[in-house]
This record gives sequence, structure tokens and C-alpha cells, in this order.
Amino acid sequence: MASEQHNAQRRTPVTIHDVARDAGVSVGTVSKALNDRGQLRPDTRARVRATAAILGFLPNELAQSLHRKRSFTVGIITSDRFGRFSIPLLEGIEDALDPARIAVFLCKPTDDLELERRHVDSLLAKRVDGIIVTSRRTDPRRPLDLGGASLPVVYAYAQSEDPAAACLLPDDEGGGALAGAHFARLGRRRIAHITGPERFAAVRERRVGLARALADAGLVLDDQLVLSGSWSEEWGREAAERLLDIGRPFDAIFCGSDQIARGVADTLRDRGVHVPEDLAIVGYDNWEIVAAATRPPLTTIDPCLDELGRLAATRLLGMIDANDGQRAAATRVPCRLVVRASCGGGAE
Amino acid sequence: MASEQHNAQRRTPVTIHDVARDAGVSVGTVSKALNDRGQLRPDTRARVRATAAILGFLPNELAQSLHRKRSFTVGIITSDRFGRFSIPLLEGIEDALDPARIAVFLCKPTDDLELERRHVDSLLAKRVDGIIVTSRRTDPRRPLDLGGASLPVVYAYAQSEDPAAACLLPDDEGGGALAGAHFARLGRRRIAHITGPERFAAVRERRVGLARALADAGLVLDDQLVLSGSWSEEWGREAAERLLDIGRPFDAIFCGSDQIARGVADTLRDRGVHVPEDLAIVGYDNWEIVAAATRPPLTTIDPCLDELGRLAATRLLGMIDANDGQRAAATRVPCRLVVRASCGGGAE
Repeated sequence: MASEQHNAQRRTPVTIHDVARDAGVSVGTVSKALNDRGQLRPDTRARVRATAAILGFLPNELAQSLHRKRSFTVGIITSDRFGRFSIPLLEGIEDALDPARIAVFLCKPTDDLELERRHVDSLLAKRVDGIIVTSRRTDPRRPLDLGGASLPVVYAYAQSEDPAAACLLPDDEGGGALAGAHFARLGRRRIAHITGPERFAAVRERRVGLARALADAGLVLDDQLVLSGSWSEEWGREAAERLLDIGRPFDAIFCGSDQIARGVADTLRDRGVHVPEDLAIVGYDNWEIVAAATRPPLTTIDPCLDELGRLAATRLLGMIDANDGQRAAATRVPCRLVVRASCGGGAE
Repeated sequence: MASEQHNAQRRTPVTIHDVARDAGVSVGTVSKALNDRGQLRPDTRARVRATAAILGFLPNELAQSLHRKRSFTVGIITSDRFGRFSIPLLEGIEDALDPARIAVFLCKPTDDLELERRHVDSLLAKRVDGIIVTSRRTDPRRPLDLGGASLPVVYAYAQSEDPAAACLLPDDEGGGALAGAHFARLGRRRIAHITGPERFAAVRERRVGLARALADAGLVLDDQLVLSGSWSEEWGREAAERLLDIGRPFDAIFCGSDQIARGVADTLRDRGVHVPEDLAIVGYDNWEIVAAATRPPLTTIDPCLDELGRLAATRLLGMIDANDGQRAAATRVPCRLVVRASCGGGAE
């Protein structure tokens, strides 16, 4: 559409009355023609549409929203200040909402329940059709306080304490299992695990998955080789030093994040340990900017957050269309193994 | 506010009629009381407000927007898919818009002008009060195509080819000068510069600032010690190798990004060069997750993107309130030196 055809001056927008006058029809006919409703002669419909296009008529969605009791907007509430996890999620969410012509209100990220409550009030006042809640961790959180309002809510990379809430979570146990199975397939036998704080559900679940996959391959996860700490490179470096000094043999390390893996790889390099020849490493997150820059580049587990975002938005659309409080238990979205160089070998 | 006080059921929201009935006044009186307009007895105003609070009445902002010709929404259009730059910007923008009770529509990031055009159409249809355009680079871009509509637009960490557009940009030349002055103050005399692609305005401007600050200290920037490449750790590593092999003496390296600086620091470590004893390093971006994890942690230039976002949103609010197409030339927002360990010494 050439920009000359647009005429949507802010203070004097083209109205439905202008279209009706120029097309020589009534306002009701314009409405029918543009909304594909009612009985109209095809040439009338075509004339109205052409006129609207020439005038650059933009339907006033605010007015339409009042009429339809739908605003075609969705609110996103997040506690992820850094955007590490919320950015790919957001991309997936918008991938799903964009074709449905639904716009996204993004609220200022916050951990503070009082501010979150104000965000909800603001979204309700905007008459959003639904809300997606995201987080920077997957542990159960207090249900979003809608103050008695009834509105579809989906938790994405977040979990509500309400067991009936619709939650989409990465399959962390499955992610741990992917790492264990990859090591086993490549002939690694003694797997160490350097991970984040035990209080994170994701830490416990990934470890369970790792142990399960190793058991499936006839291997045992040695508790002495499991070190929990923080989500940082520094912890990766410190834990790698400790592992090397314990004196127990191991030939692979599964790391709870790419940042931890980066620290581990740097320390192994400093200590003259060769990756992947002496030790294989698998990271977690597939955070490109870290995983690809590590020496060697990291084989890692991708939690597929963009896919998780798409699924969350799709579920929300379903709940909005069903026009009720339809709920579902938590759904786990599968992870994916991304093979780079830190384990040698190739994809399966 | 206790959640029991809220009653905003989605399909049966509390209306102004409910408030009027329960307070025993007319709808007009409720409107006056809640909007602080007209002449009312203080006790009537108080009674209406108490009733509205008890019922959990949420004003229907869609209806208010139609009435006031303002939607109290702003759209954000970005081409920064990774969120590195847009996330701190967004935080600053929301810091400024939140108190003004303006909500933010975030459009799916895109480089594609056709999709951008559709986003603009969608924002115009939502009757946003203004648009903020952000980018992942500061080079001039095509003006946002409003299709003839007149609407306040501010470019934040982005620049329009239209010289009259309101643009907020980091002071990259000033950032380069901060690095040069810091080195000079610490007694460094021969400064190398490893930076990103020459085609980026930011690369050229930072170099100009560096040279200016060195000249102010009676030093000369040696062209042989300036290497332009990509924005990556890998380039940092490669360029550091090259610099060490040239055989020209230098005692400091100003890096065009923290990622480049990270690569430089890793290679210096591998080659047995001590930082900051043998060589001082200054990075750029103050990207905490990279700068703080580098060994040693990076002294770096912070482009203060959150502040830039706040200023952009504040300017947009001014343009909206002035209710005209008020424009201003590009404004440069000062950078800030953040001292960690990679130069030794301390703050000034």
C-alpha cells in the first residue's frame, strides 16, 4: 500500500462517515462491507473497500473493542529483569499472537507483588483479553492476584502454586536426561555434575534426569562428583578446581548452565586438561553468545524457550476463544540437544 | 487493597451504574467524583469514592480513551532481536511511563520494513499516543513510515535520516574520550584500539573521542595499533594475537565492546601477559554478565541506556502533552566510566 494512500491524521482521522460519504452509502453499509457481515451486493462491498483504502481509513479498534467486548490485547507480566529468558519467550509469544492480530502490553519487570498488583489493575483497566506470566525461575510462585476478576492466565517458564493453573515449563528432567544419554552414547562412564543452587526446582529436576539416563545406560551418578553452587562463571571455575583436586576419576561434566560451563572450560584450559579429549562438557541454556564463544564451543541443552512462548500464547488464545476459565495442569515442553565441539562426536 | 474488595468479573464488570446505585447518586455525579471535576460536596465525593473502592470499580479506560482522544498507550518498535540494548532501554522507558500511567505496546522485533509498516498500522489502529523506535545500532535509518499520520515519534538508541527527528543517542565520542582520559591519567602512553566494523558510526565516533582525549594529554593514537573487525570475542582473541605479534610497543588496549575485551583478556592470559600490570584494558557497554566475569573484571564504558530510555520517554511525553509535532535535533546522552580491575588504579 503506497504511503500516499494513508491519510490517518492524528487529530483528524478519517472516519467511517467520510468513507460512507465518498462511497455514497450509509454508515451501516460501510460497517457491513468492512466487517464482511450482512447482505450486500458484491460491487457495493468492493466500492466501499476501495474507498476505505483510498482514504486510508483505519478502523478505530478502541471503538471496536468496546463493541465486541474484546480488546485484542494481551498483557505480559515478568519478573525477569535481565531478559535472558524472557526475550526468547517474548519472541515465541509474539510469533503466535501477531497472526491473530493481538497486541502485547509489556509491563515493567518486577519481583515486587505490590507493583505486580498495580500492573494487573492497569491491564484490567485496559480490558486485556488475557495475561501471560513469565519468570526467571520455574519454581511455584503465588498465583497472579486478579482481585476477583476472571481472566485467562497462562504461566510461561513460570509455575503457579495453584495446581489447576495453565503452566508451560521446560522439561528440565528431560534436559538432564538428554545430557546423560549423550555422554553414555559417546562412551563416557564417570559423569560429574556442576550446577546451580539446590533450592531451584530446575537444579533438582535436571539432576534426576541425568541420573535416570545414566542408570538406563548401566551407569551410576556418583554423589561425590555433584557440586551445587551459584549460576555463575566464577562458580564454574571454582567447582572445576575442586573436582580436579578431589582425585576421583571422571571423564565428563554436565553443567547446569552455559555460564557455569564457560567457567569450567576456562579452568580446564588453565590446568592443561583437554576438552573434549580428556573431558567432555555439556552446558545448559544454549545461550548462543556464551555457548558459541567458549573454547571449545559448547554442546548444550536448549530449553526451546521460543517454542515454549509460542505454545503458551497458543494456549492463551484457546482459553480466550473458549471464553471461559478453561484450565489445564502444567505442561512440560521438551528440550533439545545442540551439538557443538565440547563432547567431540556428532549428533546421534 | 484486599483482593476481596475487587469484584471486576470479566463478563460482568462493575459499571459506573452500579456505583451510582449503591452510592445513591447519578452517573454524572460518579463521573465528577472519580475524575475530580465539577462542583460536588466533599462528603458526596468521599461517599462515591468509597463505594467505587468497595465494589472494585475499574474505570473502563477504553471508553475513557475514546472520550479523551488519548489512549494512554505508547508503542515501541525495535530491530534489536537479542534484547542486549533494548532491555535496559525498555527499563528506562517504563520507569518514565509507569508514573504517567501509560502502558507500553511492544511490537515483535523486526528488521523488515514491510513488517514494521504493519506494526505501525496496528499501533495507529490502537490509537497510541506516540511511538518510540529503538535499534541495535545508532546509524541513521529510514524515518518511520507513518503513512501520512501525524504522531509524536522519538528514536532512542536509533537515529532517523530525517535531521529534524527527535533522536536520543549515546555520546559515543564522549565514551571514547573517557577511555582515553582514563588511560592517560593512569600514565599509559601507547594505546591500542581493537574495535568493531568501521561501517558502524559508533566505531568511528569512539575512535575520534579516544584520539581527542589522547591529544589532550599530549599523546598520539598510532593508526598501526587500531584494528577493526567484528563485535565478537573471537575477533578480540584474534586481534590480540595480531597486536602482540606486530612488535610495536603498547601498554593499554581500548576495546569496542566488552565481548571483544573478553576475548582480548583471554588471549593475553594464554600468552602470559599480565593485566593490568603489563597492559591495561577498557571495554565498552558495561554488560555486567561479560564485564564482571572477565579475568580480571573489566573497567568499561557504560552507555547508560536505561537513562537514555528514561530521557526518550520523557521527551515523548512532552511531545504528546504539547499536542503537536514538536521536534528536536539529536541529543547525545553522556556515558560513564565504570572502574573494575582491568586498568588497576581506582576511580578519579
